[in-house]
Amino acid sequence: MVNAPAVAADELTRLLTAEFPQVWSNASGLSIEKVWSGGCRLRQAFREQLLRPGATISGATIMALGDYAVYVAVLATIGWEPLAVTTSLNVNFLRKPGCKDLLADCDLIKVGKRLIVGEVTIREAGEDRDDGPIAHLTSTYSVPPRR
Amino acid sequence: MVNAPAVAADELTRLLTAEFPQVWSNASGLSIEKVWSGGCRLRQAFREQLLRPGATISGATIMALGDYAVYVAVLATIGWEPLAVTTSLNVNFLRKPGCKDLLADCDLIKVGKRLIVGEVTIREAGEDRDDGPIAHLTSTYSVPPRR
Amino acid sequence: MVNAPAVAADELTRLLTAEFPQVWSNASGLSIEKVWSGGCRLRQAFREQLLRPGATISGATIMALGDYAVYVAVLATIGWEPLAVTTSLNVNFLRKPGCKDLLADCDLIKVGKRLIVGEVTIREAGEDRDDGPIAHLTSTYSVPPRR
Amino acid sequence: MVNAPAVAADELTRLLTAEFPQVWSNASGLSIEKVWSGGCRLRQAFREQLLRPGATISGATIMALGDYAVYVAVLATIGWEPLAVTTSLNVNFLRKPGCKDLLADCDLIKVGKRLIVGEVTIREAGEDRDDGPIAHLTSTYSVPPRR
Repeated sequence: MVNAPAVAADELTRLLTAEFPQVWSNASGLSIEKVWSGGCRLRQAFREQLLRPGATISGATIMALGDYAVYVAVLATIGWEPLAVTTSLNVNFLRKPGCKDLLADCDLIKVGKRLIVGEVTIREAGEDRDDGPIAHLTSTYSVPPRR
Repeated sequence: MVNAPAVAADELTRLLTAEFPQVWSNASGLSIEKVWSGGCRLRQAFREQLLRPGATISGATIMALGDYAVYVAVLATIGWEPLAVTTSLNVNFLRKPGCKDLLADCDLIKVGKRLIVGEVTIREAGEDRDDGPIAHLTSTYSVPPRR
Repeated sequence: MVNAPAVAADELTRLLTAEFPQVWSNASGLSIEKVWSGGCRLRQAFREQLLRPGATISGATIMALGDYAVYVAVLATIGWEPLAVTTSLNVNFLRKPGCKDLLADCDLIKVGKRLIVGEVTIREAGEDRDDGPIAHLTSTYSVPPRR
Repeated sequence: MVNAPAVAADELTRLLTAEFPQVWSNASGLSIEKVWSGGCRLRQAFREQLLRPGATISGATIMALGDYAVYVAVLATIGWEPLAVTTSLNVNFLRKPGCKDLLADCDLIKVGKRLIVGEVTIREAGEDRDDGPIAHLTSTYSVPPRR
């Protein structure tokens, strides 16, 4: 069962584009697929400039995607609070992606007053056969006290 | 005591610029300050586009800097091996940086045949008073078997 | 769909009790609920001596439970290989457990030739209402090359 | 430069033994070597029952030692606050220890109002030659607001 987000996807995209113009743009390839209270799905479209040696997408891209997924899930759950900040992040890289879009599925596993913890699984989009996820992350956000 | 690197800083910069032109460039602001066998220091020059809400440098930038620091330390220690890949990374964000260059100091704490583990402390450059580090990371790289 | 384990739960319990008599015993309260190829469920029965200040189960107990869950899942998947060792572990503590048994559900999210990564969610047993998980872990095991 | 602890080692030992009698006892082998404001050194004396297959000390023992080191460093820095709890912990196991005492050196790398982050290096005691550390941990504690 999925609950309505505190802020809709369109509105989040508009706000994020205004706040982080380098990150949320057509050029970057990062976009929101859907949001709900407690999670979201983001897409990182494939871009040549994200490649690293071995014809694979860089770890920095994958970490950024995972971190943004938790950020978006936090905002979709508690409302627009751009000053939420990451306090820690852990990532396991599971296999190398090919030249494909990536999807990041985030679920918040704790929503506390101060600390919110999200879990993210990153997969290749449109996998016809499932070779398993690309990466798995957990990340903790610290949020200002809410009224 | 510091041992000579397997590849000098100039040569590493030349090779990295060829392999990762988006990452290692004047535009990106990322550069090698020094390398030795077992570690390195990188600099991330301040760039407006690295900012996020709160007038602070984005977590994605800090994670990328830390990950590249371990990568450079690995290459400086075992020689040019661009297919070394991160298997896991953990980061703790300790305080928000201001609008300053960042320095990443990396020491390898394990150099195994297959797995290499690095530890990175990220600080603001030119701190006149020490407010403590910005972030601390550990990261594990998997390296192809060496001859 | 769940696949048959490489070693059955009874046999694993017998082997583990022989190898780790302090850990796998009635006194410790640790037991296997079920295993399959790719995962397992362990139970940590409540014991007074596991408490810490705040009338809650110690973090050390929770970490040990999670680490053993990945170990058992590895053995259930690749067969009896007691020399498998943890290379890294990350845990997020999500809320304090009460004086109850704990259940650890482990799924392996990567089964490579050398490295196996497991994800574990720890919950209170018999929760009538779901207050959410107690802890979430990921752990990487290094395994000797298989024939 | 080392600052006086908020609570002396003898007093901490007395308080911890009263609160955690299973953990802080001659039987367990865990003891405080020294404390200061911002850190501590703990010793885990070698005990047969800590061994696991491969004649090496179990990962669970090493994680518990590291977690207690951060706990003791927190108490030595902010004063007796037994309700401080771990929110996250990350450990890298670097090499297998032999049948020796272990020393855990902890430094707090952030002391915030709510969150305290410690870094721990675990080594074998009395190494005549340095084969490098056994394990490296970081751990975050949440502390009740202080007056």
